[in-house]
Amino acid sequence: MSHYKAPLADMRFALFDVIGAEAAFERMGFADATRDVLDAVLEEGARFNETVLAPLNAVGDREGCRLDLATGEVTTPPGFKQAYAQYVDGGWSGLTAPAEFGGQGMPHAAGVPLKEMIDAANLAWGNFPLLSHGATEALLHHGEAWQQERFLKPLVDGRWTGTMCLTEPHCGTDLGLLRTRAEPLGDGRYAITGTKIFITAGEHDFTDNILHLVLAKLPDAPAGSRGISLFIVPKMRVDEDGTLGERNAVRCGSLEHKMGIHGSATCVLNFDGAEGFLVGQPHKGLVAMFTMMNTARLAVGLQGLGLSDRAYQNALAYSRDRLQMRALSGPKFPDKPADPIIVHPDVRRMLLTCKALVEGGRAMGYHAALQVDLAHHAPEAAEREQADALLGFMTPIVKACLTEWGVECTYHALQCYGGHGYIAEHGMEQLARDARITTLYEGTTGIQALDLLGRKVLQQQGAGLKLMLGLIEAFCETPDLPAPAQAFVAPLRAKLAEWQQLTLRIGQRAAADPEEVGAAAHDYLMYSGYVCLAYWWARSVAAAEASSHPEALKAAKRETARFYFRRVLPRTLMHAAAIDAGAATLMALDADAFD
Amino acid sequence: MSHYKAPLADMRFALFDVIGAEAAFERMGFADATRDVLDAVLEEGARFNETVLAPLNAVGDREGCRLDLATGEVTTPPGFKQAYAQYVDGGWSGLTAPAEFGGQGMPHAAGVPLKEMIDAANLAWGNFPLLSHGATEALLHHGEAWQQERFLKPLVDGRWTGTMCLTEPHCGTDLGLLRTRAEPLGDGRYAITGTKIFITAGEHDFTDNILHLVLAKLPDAPAGSRGISLFIVPKMRVDEDGTLGERNAVRCGSLEHKMGIHGSATCVLNFDGAEGFLVGQPHKGLVAMFTMMNTARLAVGLQGLGLSDRAYQNALAYSRDRLQMRALSGPKFPDKPADPIIVHPDVRRMLLTCKALVEGGRAMGYHAALQVDLAHHAPEAAEREQADALLGFMTPIVKACLTEWGVECTYHALQCYGGHGYIAEHGMEQLARDARITTLYEGTTGIQALDLLGRKVLQQQGAGLKLMLGLIEAFCETPDLPAPAQAFVAPLRAKLAEWQQLTLRIGQRAAADPEEVGAAAHDYLMYSGYVCLAYWWARSVAAAEASSHPEALKAAKRETARFYFRRVLPRTLMHAAAIDAGAATLMALDADAFD
Repeated sequence: MSHYKAPLADMRFALFDVIGAEAAFERMGFADATRDVLDAVLEEGARFNETVLAPLNAVGDREGCRLDLATGEVTTPPGFKQAYAQYVDGGWSGLTAPAEFGGQGMPHAAGVPLKEMIDAANLAWGNFPLLSHGATEALLHHGEAWQQERFLKPLVDGRWTGTMCLTEPHCGTDLGLLRTRAEPLGDGRYAITGTKIFITAGEHDFTDNILHLVLAKLPDAPAGSRGISLFIVPKMRVDEDGTLGERNAVRCGSLEHKMGIHGSATCVLNFDGAEGFLVGQPHKGLVAMFTMMNTARLAVGLQGLGLSDRAYQNALAYSRDRLQMRALSGPKFPDKPADPIIVHPDVRRMLLTCKALVEGGRAMGYHAALQVDLAHHAPEAAEREQADALLGFMTPIVKACLTEWGVECTYHALQCYGGHGYIAEHGMEQLARDARITTLYEGTTGIQALDLLGRKVLQQQGAGLKLMLGLIEAFCETPDLPAPAQAFVAPLRAKLAEWQQLTLRIGQRAAADPEEVGAAAHDYLMYSGYVCLAYWWARSVAAAEASSHPEALKAAKRETARFYFRRVLPRTLMHAAAIDAGAATLMALDADAFD
Repeated sequence: MSHYKAPLADMRFALFDVIGAEAAFERMGFADATRDVLDAVLEEGARFNETVLAPLNAVGDREGCRLDLATGEVTTPPGFKQAYAQYVDGGWSGLTAPAEFGGQGMPHAAGVPLKEMIDAANLAWGNFPLLSHGATEALLHHGEAWQQERFLKPLVDGRWTGTMCLTEPHCGTDLGLLRTRAEPLGDGRYAITGTKIFITAGEHDFTDNILHLVLAKLPDAPAGSRGISLFIVPKMRVDEDGTLGERNAVRCGSLEHKMGIHGSATCVLNFDGAEGFLVGQPHKGLVAMFTMMNTARLAVGLQGLGLSDRAYQNALAYSRDRLQMRALSGPKFPDKPADPIIVHPDVRRMLLTCKALVEGGRAMGYHAALQVDLAHHAPEAAEREQADALLGFMTPIVKACLTEWGVECTYHALQCYGGHGYIAEHGMEQLARDARITTLYEGTTGIQALDLLGRKVLQQQGAGLKLMLGLIEAFCETPDLPAPAQAFVAPLRAKLAEWQQLTLRIGQRAAADPEEVGAAAHDYLMYSGYVCLAYWWARSVAAAEASSHPEALKAAKRETARFYFRRVLPRTLMHAAAIDAGAATLMALDADAFD
């Protein structure tokens, strides 16, 4: 079984030293989000995740969820329901929700390390409360007052959980094709009918009620994605005073058998004239759904990060422990029968890749989360707008890169174990299987890439990109940067220039041929992610040097940054070349000629 | 469930058009290996694999193998045993074995497409007969006459299967640490005692007997890997006339629970004074074992290839079928509700990556297999030596690259399915799980990399490398290359020069610090693999142009080669940069400072 210890020291380093969250929280008026309080929250979160959730990870994988076809009820793996009760008792469900709906009103960015811990400790379990946050966001921003009153509080206090019901058998990415329909009943209620698939936490035994947020079409809906509306469909009907009534006409028809996250209930949900309520304007459901989706995309990015970290922790421990061969430069532990494999450069290559992607990714992910707070709570409107643009730009990068790196890190970590990594009892293969979903759900990597290049860069005149470039430029021009950080300025400047030129060239080609956007998107996204990560590594070194942390931490940041710049950042060369290869290299072959 | 159709057209193209196997077989005196005979063998092999093995792939994954702890007997998944009987009846087990031991005496390279089909059709099943070939090789080259007489024939005709028993709980890569011991009984027999793990096909119900080839130490063994001897330990004792006697003292103690290849029996074998016979010289077991291992390494490379191809076939069919979104340049199928996803450049990027790695990898893998034949049967001694050197050089590249690409291709193919790829019923996730073992067993990618750079390039003065460089150079200087192939000459020459300079620089650095070898090895191996593949793509284009194949095939080869050179070959930039980063970027961080 794999172990997990919350990386509190590096979480604090990212949050406080690198992105300066404490000052930002104060500036936004989060009076309770002081360093002391946040430290206590982190400690308590670590305890809960290490002792309650982490030990249930293997059980969840082994036992999975079970559906009783006769009743449509789902039983979660042993211990999952009890852990959820502890989660609710601990007040975790409403940590970052507004106080007026029963939340604790902490900043979003303060909740993110907790989210990372949950994902690392037990990703499958974490998917049950996950979508409550998205549903909360949707109702906060688009719900009517009575909907907020009736539906929001139980989500915030964890009495209920939420879902996002988008996908249907014939459409996932292309929601314009969806067939679920909503018939007005004339009294403000709607009858929802259709089949939704891949519904995470669509049915379970954690809570008495589940709030489904469902995309469906009204009878007069225009064709395509401009004709989609959003509805609340509770599993149990809810009276005006909030008491639960009878079962609504929505039922789990089956559970998917998946590669991983066996402990998560991935449901087919059949709506058979279920009672629902419109959220927001008719036909404007996608807008509201994107509110949920953007939250969920950042959250899935953190899933990649959490899994990477757990995989890395275990590979590191194994590499220090496992004795095999001697170092090529001579025995390092002559008293042992062989050297621990961490002496071998190739094992170090794999470990350092994980360390660089995890710690750099943590700073990047937490910074994006801070933009969520700034977009809503920054004192000045201009700053709020900027944060929103930067967030829009970074969301696809965080989602796609952290999940692709999750697949990569779980690969490297398993590889460090040799053949033992393939055996279930070590727990590494579960992490690899669990990680594999993260590049698929909430928009595949390809979809994130199109969102970044097509929408955020080309359609929005690169507002977010300019802000990111500005951040990097400002860093490069920081006066009196400590020498170890200064060493990264020149390579960072070079990448900055290259990034701008690449973007210009894509824009020019795309004006002539729209397929150029799709042809460049994936490599552009990964390229951008690696340049952003280079920035976060340079900033991490600067932050470490400026801090009062021990020299060991400073050295570790320096050496990992050096490793990153010399051995990982060159991936940008490959992505730049692929981008410049253009669309013709992808589009020339006839679809019939691929065999 | 995923489908599989043997890619006969491309197999023939690789074998006959690209590597010119027919002429080579004739030159080596394989009178029966004519084009007609080989075509018939391929057709019959396709039928067997498509109709018998492929449909059992999902069953094997679902049901796995079962161990009866009371008897130590293993039951294989439903249908596996019957399929093996058909395999034996069809004469497949002895296809490439010498006629004097009951084989059909076909060249090794002629058996390789069959091997690829088996791996693609049902990798887990393929692991049962797989190691019979290795055991056959070891006995052919190192066994005494009576051992060949008694043990070889039943292996060749498929009545028995073989195993390779190397790994122990505390040692896999580092065989010098092994503890299994062999006590001489004074009559030419030995009593073998110890525990071996990860023994593929260590116990099963296919055959009446299993021949274990076991590494163990004699009482007077020198320490380390120079004190290892190889023994034959049959599961059932064998009388002089070949009849089976009583059960030997070797028993399956447990089956591993693995990420994939559930249908393969991966056994813990306990030897408790089991009767065994020495193969080859005392303390020289590693030499004999390497005979098996090299065969097995090429074979595992083909596993990566086979899985890649099956994954690609399914992703291609899905991408032509699945309707989602419109092409960015406007609807391509306006009569359908959406365009098939193969119109999208990013889907094409994933498909073309698979196609380029599969078809190029096939030519590369088959060519390496041809060197096995040439090393033994080429008319001139010099040619045999050259083939042996080239084979030694290519073996780690074929093993590591084809398996890493197997992981990559199953990743891309699954990704083409979106969320559906994560669901077991589509079969894509099984391919990804099965592929994951191939970069681990028979020497991890890291071990292949050290074998390539440390042994084959630096220790052996690059004999194999020079031959490979010579092949590429000769191609570049071919007079009257058809224009489409000529277009690849300049980039190929550039890579050739870069490869030589990189190698020189590594050699210089390694002279000063042996850790430089380990620090460069992985990236050097991948770099070499991508340059070799560029050569095979250029040669494939030349071969296609020179052939009488239809224009559609020529165009497909041209466009895929163009894609490869422009979008995949640039990965060499990243690997070259990582190599030049040197050992310091890996070794600087103290082992205690990785947390």
